[in-house]
Amino acid sequence: MITTDILIIGAGPTGLFTVFEAGLLKLKCHLIDALPQPGGQCSEIYPKKPIYDIPAYPEILAGDLTDKLLEQCKQFEPGFTLGERAETIDKQEDGSFIITTNKGTKHKAPVVAIAGGLGSFEPRKPLLENITNFEDKGVEYIIKDPELYRDKRVVIAGGGDSALDWSIFLSDVASEVTLIHRRNEFRGHLDSVEKVQELKNAGKINLITPAEVTAIIGDDKVKGIEVTKKDENPIIVETDHFIPLFGLSPKLGPIANWGLEIEKNAIKVNNALDYQTNIPGIFAIGDVNTYPGKLKLILCGFHEATLMCQAAYQIINPGKRYVLKYTTVSGIDGFDGTRKEAPKAVVKAIE
Amino acid sequence: MITTDILIIGAGPTGLFTVFEAGLLKLKCHLIDALPQPGGQCSEIYPKKPIYDIPAYPEILAGDLTDKLLEQCKQFEPGFTLGERAETIDKQEDGSFIITTNKGTKHKAPVVAIAGGLGSFEPRKPLLENITNFEDKGVEYIIKDPELYRDKRVVIAGGGDSALDWSIFLSDVASEVTLIHRRNEFRGHLDSVEKVQELKNAGKINLITPAEVTAIIGDDKVKGIEVTKKDENPIIVETDHFIPLFGLSPKLGPIANWGLEIEKNAIKVNNALDYQTNIPGIFAIGDVNTYPGKLKLILCGFHEATLMCQAAYQIINPGKRYVLKYTTVSGIDGFDGTRKEAPKAVVKAIE
Repeated sequence: MITTDILIIGAGPTGLFTVFEAGLLKLKCHLIDALPQPGGQCSEIYPKKPIYDIPAYPEILAGDLTDKLLEQCKQFEPGFTLGERAETIDKQEDGSFIITTNKGTKHKAPVVAIAGGLGSFEPRKPLLENITNFEDKGVEYIIKDPELYRDKRVVIAGGGDSALDWSIFLSDVASEVTLIHRRNEFRGHLDSVEKVQELKNAGKINLITPAEVTAIIGDDKVKGIEVTKKDENPIIVETDHFIPLFGLSPKLGPIANWGLEIEKNAIKVNNALDYQTNIPGIFAIGDVNTYPGKLKLILCGFHEATLMCQAAYQIINPGKRYVLKYTTVSGIDGFDGTRKEAPKAVVKAIE
Repeated sequence: MITTDILIIGAGPTGLFTVFEAGLLKLKCHLIDALPQPGGQCSEIYPKKPIYDIPAYPEILAGDLTDKLLEQCKQFEPGFTLGERAETIDKQEDGSFIITTNKGTKHKAPVVAIAGGLGSFEPRKPLLENITNFEDKGVEYIIKDPELYRDKRVVIAGGGDSALDWSIFLSDVASEVTLIHRRNEFRGHLDSVEKVQELKNAGKINLITPAEVTAIIGDDKVKGIEVTKKDENPIIVETDHFIPLFGLSPKLGPIANWGLEIEKNAIKVNNALDYQTNIPGIFAIGDVNTYPGKLKLILCGFHEATLMCQAAYQIINPGKRYVLKYTTVSGIDGFDGTRKEAPKAVVKAIE
């Protein structure tokens, strides 16, 4: 059982900044995210795209935003359960909550902060009979650890940035990379498209277009796939892995069944105070919540996280009064023993 | 008469970010600030101090934060009335407001956003008879334009960073710099103290310590000051300017008389919607406002500014529906003709 002060569902920008604000209040956090790395959409969907409306950043790439937030909260030593989806929540007699993931990992905390963004990202799956039987047995929709593919044969399907970028990356790792797309045209960064063309010319990526995967071959695990080009007979490509990268779409998922008040696919919160939901002790912050005038902006998530941490402090330290300290004045004491502070003024005679 | 969409009182971080968020909604802003430059406290009081709780900035100097915010909003071409204090507000029959400064400059807008921080910074004045008679006639409490002192004789009084830093700076500009402090010890950055020691040794700064300015000499303008060292007879120092730098203290000031609901020296707002005050069309954002759970943090001001701009849009464009656009997706069109946008994906065949 993992125990902590604040359990954060969702390791996107809002979740990560919560770790920092909680840390200032000496509260510890643990984050659960269905994606294999922190950063949410910013890391998974558009790491190379610029964002222009993060305050004081005229421009920042989404991936860099994640890195900065990770750096900022690092000293408060967050725990992570990644690649697992928060599935069930159980309120304990002592008022705390136990959250169990789809893989059975259990977490306990007195406060839960749902920072789930638009929901957990579920892959769009190809319509192939029995594909679910092969999941984690050679079929993967998200690449969690590229090392899994070292010296293995890999078939990637898809026509966007993910398919292009992973084909490029795995061409150096896997023994064989085959890229299949239903059109000749790919949609992505010019660099990526050109790099794949280059690797194809060099014989490092097998390209089969326009074509579709029409069946998966194998018994207990993937042995190959059937590929059909237009107006041609299907062929078999032997492979150890089949990775369809058809995009991710967010779903509120199991959270929708936790007894929270839901409106338009988002969780209603009390925005006049602390972003608490209808269940005391459970807060919803960032894009996942809704209230009158709500804007789904990262900068709003930062504010909501900050106010929420104050309420969490009161739940965890009942009756104790917290006096806001300014980081410029008081500095920051990390849980890892580090201390950050402004250079001190000296008092020194001039003679 | 200066006219604009949103008149912002206070050019600190919250005011500056308001310009950006308003710009995204195609609303123009004009800022009024009593200080001679934008940035509020961050520029005037602690430009060289690090802040640790700006989201995604593990550390940023307050002065750099101001620069980044200015850069971010530049494309939306804000207007500035600096070095003047917003004094009176008059509601017009058409629902708009006219704000007049202490120097008589008039501004008109349908929406007013008070982002006044802790108030307008008023200098702490030395207790010298008739000092007010010499204001702007040789006595200045804030240095607005250092060029005013070129080849002039200057006396600075004070023992902190401002006195040290301006003595250093003006030693290169003025014909003569005298620094007077009631103790031998100065309180400031080690660098600054050492630099003043160096300049004093080199004869570029006259140091008189421990001593106090006990009178101002002159008729219609400053001709000299009387300085008294402990247990000694007063001496006269001839000078063109006397600049007491004894710190600034914030005062809500004339805004307190605008008919706004005030609580604990801050303006009450409706935090459940849009941070509007009891007077429709006047909003209060950032440290100047108060509501249940309020935290006086810069990051909260950013959020409040953003929600406020949506309400301003409704006032200025009644009945028109605004659909939130993401800067990553839509890019940004500046009022100055510039356009920022993410590099476009290409659609390109691989053969």
